[in-house]
Amino acid sequence: MNAAPYPVVRLRPKAEARALRHGFPWVYSDELVTDRRTRALAPGTLAVLEDAERRPLGLVAVNPASKIIARMLDRDVGAVIDREWFARRLERAQALRTQLFDAPFYRLSHAEADGLPGVVIDRFGAAVVIQPNAAWAEAHLDTLAQAVSDVTGAEVLVKNGTGRARGLEGLAEETVALRGTLDGPVPVPMNGATYMADLLGGQKTGLFYDQRPNHAFAARLAPGARVLDVFSHVGGFALAALAGGAERALSVDASAPALELATQGATAMGAADRFATRRGDAFDVMAALAEEGETFDVVICDPPAFAPNRAALEAGLRAYERVARMAAKLVAPGGYLVLCSCSHAADLTRFRAASARGIGKAGRRGQIIHTGFAGPDHPVLPQLAESGYLKAVFFRLTE
Amino acid sequence: MNAAPYPVVRLRPKAEARALRHGFPWVYSDELVTDRRTRALAPGTLAVLEDAERRPLGLVAVNPASKIIARMLDRDVGAVIDREWFARRLERAQALRTQLFDAPFYRLSHAEADGLPGVVIDRFGAAVVIQPNAAWAEAHLDTLAQAVSDVTGAEVLVKNGTGRARGLEGLAEETVALRGTLDGPVPVPMNGATYMADLLGGQKTGLFYDQRPNHAFAARLAPGARVLDVFSHVGGFALAALAGGAERALSVDASAPALELATQGATAMGAADRFATRRGDAFDVMAALAEEGETFDVVICDPPAFAPNRAALEAGLRAYERVARMAAKLVAPGGYLVLCSCSHAADLTRFRAASARGIGKAGRRGQIIHTGFAGPDHPVLPQLAESGYLKAVFFRLTE
Repeated sequence: MNAAPYPVVRLRPKAEARALRHGFPWVYSDELVTDRRTRALAPGTLAVLEDAERRPLGLVAVNPASKIIARMLDRDVGAVIDREWFARRLERAQALRTQLFDAPFYRLSHAEADGLPGVVIDRFGAAVVIQPNAAWAEAHLDTLAQAVSDVTGAEVLVKNGTGRARGLEGLAEETVALRGTLDGPVPVPMNGATYMADLLGGQKTGLFYDQRPNHAFAARLAPGARVLDVFSHVGGFALAALAGGAERALSVDASAPALELATQGATAMGAADRFATRRGDAFDVMAALAEEGETFDVVICDPPAFAPNRAALEAGLRAYERVARMAAKLVAPGGYLVLCSCSHAADLTRFRAASARGIGKAGRRGQIIHTGFAGPDHPVLPQLAESGYLKAVFFRLTE
Repeated sequence: MNAAPYPVVRLRPKAEARALRHGFPWVYSDELVTDRRTRALAPGTLAVLEDAERRPLGLVAVNPASKIIARMLDRDVGAVIDREWFARRLERAQALRTQLFDAPFYRLSHAEADGLPGVVIDRFGAAVVIQPNAAWAEAHLDTLAQAVSDVTGAEVLVKNGTGRARGLEGLAEETVALRGTLDGPVPVPMNGATYMADLLGGQKTGLFYDQRPNHAFAARLAPGARVLDVFSHVGGFALAALAGGAERALSVDASAPALELATQGATAMGAADRFATRRGDAFDVMAALAEEGETFDVVICDPPAFAPNRAALEAGLRAYERVARMAAKLVAPGGYLVLCSCSHAADLTRFRAASARGIGKAGRRGQIIHTGFAGPDHPVLPQLAESGYLKAVFFRLTE
């Protein structure tokens, strides 16, 4: 084929090209020469990225409206981003998941790490949810959707256009079925439990696959246990604990629809008689449970990101400490406390320290028996590994 | 009971008592008033630790010969360190392991985190190996051994007095059976594999239980794979991979006795026909395999600690980079590279960066699909969590 007729964008003289050559996938807006021509590129335009000495670095997608002004798509500057290109990336991603999981319920594409910058795809059996969280993916959505159909054979394709990432790219919110129709929530088997995922109206893509290995570890602590799952969403930890043999599990969440899905999941598992929900603010419910003198053998807190960015870090760490303090009081002697964070800004060291402070302020002490991250269907680039956002720290409160 | 007749040791005025009150387990030698009386205490003497204002902090074991001059044993200054005291700590530790493991093969005490400072105990069914790595434990070994018998019912007790930690405490090397006799290596079931552990003559206690969850994750990558296990010891990753369905596995180690035990394990599993060994320096053997044009679907490198302390950090990181570079060349396209470090001084961020540099220098690229630490029978104190020594980073080399 002939060289593709892509426009050229160029790094500023002081910009560091070495990291890009070694696999770093992003160019920040202050690293690129942003002349009028570059500023005029439509969001999602494909372009050849050159260093300041005009040596080509690769094919990028440009979004002049984003702080991440260019995302590396292919080191081959002549690559054509067509249905076959997408299919090759998706097949590579699917090969990993097929190796690791018995059934087609997983994150199929975790964006940059799977070679599809900004593209998150979750698979729910015959249904697939696509989150095109970067402008280039929105622009190529039809081609991407065709390739997803080719590779997965999915009958239902949903575009989920919610979330903070799209706002940063200047993209509008929109969730819509691209192919096929959905007849209510989709049952999802995971760790022996059954979850009900609302692919059109739920949070994110409808289910959080990232916690799978942490759910599994919690289930090992569950046999015979009374389990409290705070910030439960559709029952992530609670249903896994029931599948693992918990005596009973209580899910706490502010969302009535999420708790209704959790209850549907428990019913589908035949565990409805061991499952209960309590709707309300997590802090209020924890305080009420303490007031009632309730204790649990396993308490899990998986809150939303309290420290999504650096500006929110200190306040976020205080919130994590508060969660730990209130939750620790509800743990029976010798019981377990599982504390999770999905905050980018709060790294493991800081999050663990805040959690330990909270436990100490509750008058408790313990040992850390396990630290888990997101599952292997959420790979990370080594160059972005510091941003591994999900942490789950398993404490055993010996005192 | 009356107050125990323990001598008193005291923190210096500037020493920080707060961390000790919050569970930090050690007093460094420059934090304690080391008058002639304290310096004269026999290594392992029990004493009451007071802060500079003479407020009691707890019962400690003192070793004037160690940089860790005092280790917190009990917040109760009147505690009596007898057979029942040891039994209570051991029962608490055993309760966690019984919850997590089907069979009594695990680390029973991981020292400070299990409330037994410096005391490492590994259980191999009816045999138990005790490492009394602090002076107080050596001094109380008879009582400790009685308690271990009480709690575990073990028929064989081995004292393993090897390792760097004992040297720091001024203790001599000595490995001896305290009770019962051993008739050759002990078969150990783990992750569906069978390992042969030499409890009297092997490295450390004879087997490394800490890698159990990482062996298990590697086994998920193994079905149908050609597996290379470098620094294999008694076959840790190789035998787990065979149990997981590897087509064949090759163990590389410098130690002939370790490889002989690995072969015995493969034979006991009925997998001897899929298993081979190659004795030699790991770097030499990797170079030879590259020379021969060999590739593997899964390559694991679990070297000894290249960066055991801060002084060795830079050289250690270069060694890890070299391991990654040489190993990456042996990974088939789309295959997996598992890189491990048991160096305290090389934290996860540094180790991962060194590994990624090595992979890049081999001309390969990849994604990180999993990061694992030591298993839950190796708990850590939150106050010492930074010292979590074992890291296993699972790369998939997509290019």
